[in-house]
Amino acid sequence: MGKMTTSIKTKEAIIDAAIVLFNTKGYDGSSVRDIASRARVNSANISYYFHGKQGLLEECFTRFFETYLLCLENAVDELGKSPTDFCLKNAIKNILYFQSDHHLLSRFVWREMSIDSQIVREITSSYLMKEKYLLKKVIEQGIEEELFLKLPANILIIQLKSMLSMPYLNAQYLREVWQLFPQEKYFVERYYEAIESWIDQTLVKNIEISPPNYFMQVNSL
Amino acid sequence: MGKMTTSIKTKEAIIDAAIVLFNTKGYDGSSVRDIASRARVNSANISYYFHGKQGLLEECFTRFFETYLLCLENAVDELGKSPTDFCLKNAIKNILYFQSDHHLLSRFVWREMSIDSQIVREITSSYLMKEKYLLKKVIEQGIEEELFLKLPANILIIQLKSMLSMPYLNAQYLREVWQLFPQEKYFVERYYEAIESWIDQTLVKNIEISPPNYFMQVNSL
Repeated sequence: MGKMTTSIKTKEAIIDAAIVLFNTKGYDGSSVRDIASRARVNSANISYYFHGKQGLLEECFTRFFETYLLCLENAVDELGKSPTDFCLKNAIKNILYFQSDHHLLSRFVWREMSIDSQIVREITSSYLMKEKYLLKKVIEQGIEEELFLKLPANILIIQLKSMLSMPYLNAQYLREVWQLFPQEKYFVERYYEAIESWIDQTLVKNIEISPPNYFMQVNSL
Repeated sequence: MGKMTTSIKTKEAIIDAAIVLFNTKGYDGSSVRDIASRARVNSANISYYFHGKQGLLEECFTRFFETYLLCLENAVDELGKSPTDFCLKNAIKNILYFQSDHHLLSRFVWREMSIDSQIVREITSSYLMKEKYLLKKVIEQGIEEELFLKLPANILIIQLKSMLSMPYLNAQYLREVWQLFPQEKYFVERYYEAIESWIDQTLVKNIEISPPNYFMQVNSL
């Protein structure tokens, strides 16, 4: 982490405490006093740095989606320089590692996103519309290059998003039912491979193994 | 619906009101008085039929998972009588239609399941352990018959479960970002096809189009 000033340390301690409490007691069940006490800071710091609990909630969403979208922006920037399926896979790998490193934040954010609230509507119309734009751009580029099959982007993106968020949203299901730990590197590696094979089998045209090609070879002999 | 006795009508009105309020105001934010008022019944009925709000919550979980698991039990019962991939696909179709018909209940249940609470731990150790057992049984049967590829069941089941629940958990994301309505038959049909093709491409061995087979044909000519 390197050296941090006292104000950065205080802010980080508050955020960390808030994420733990929001996860265990829920947003409504966590008071500013609880958060300050867990972070070992004075409550006044929360007002000063975040303008209260609502500001802390916004900070959680912003931190999560800024990094999440950066993974997708990098994929779009790489289009044309690297193969399109590689750009997509790389973004997915980065998102999985990011979620694994911030598994409590990820869980809280994906859980909150399923509520119909003012802040969720704002996040949806900004970050999630941008996510849609970036993912569509990658998929449409792949289709244009005839590397990807011509499938409807909306259903593909819904499937992909569900696979990306589920282990982090349902960490305790994975732990209790499957003894899998989504914050561990071992899980991320195996789970990434499963999503990669979904991309290869569903999305990527696989000309070498398609039957017409082989039939043609047989007939031309 | 046919004829219903007054007591069944009252119970159904209470459940319907509870599901709407739990979804809009959350479980903690909904009082017995709110639920009674929305259901147009006396609060005493909620104590009498459900022993309070906690009992109503349990009733929501039970209703959801009893039908959900019935779809999987039917798949297991059909093993050996119908092709194994058909048994699995049929269960998935039935689960999607059930969730579509009860989209508010589904959304609330999947959302609650992401909390770490006493009731969720109970549901996990009963219903979700049974779900694991049934899904593994279908997949292992397919592997034994050499119809399915020999893949680790745990990651496959996590992928499948994520695709099954996501549109219902995130109904407002689908509506606002994609103008898709997971409670509509049109959506269910298209979404089912996407999961079906995931099964065909990921799980089912496709001997006809695998390259070694074609190479053999070419070489034998």
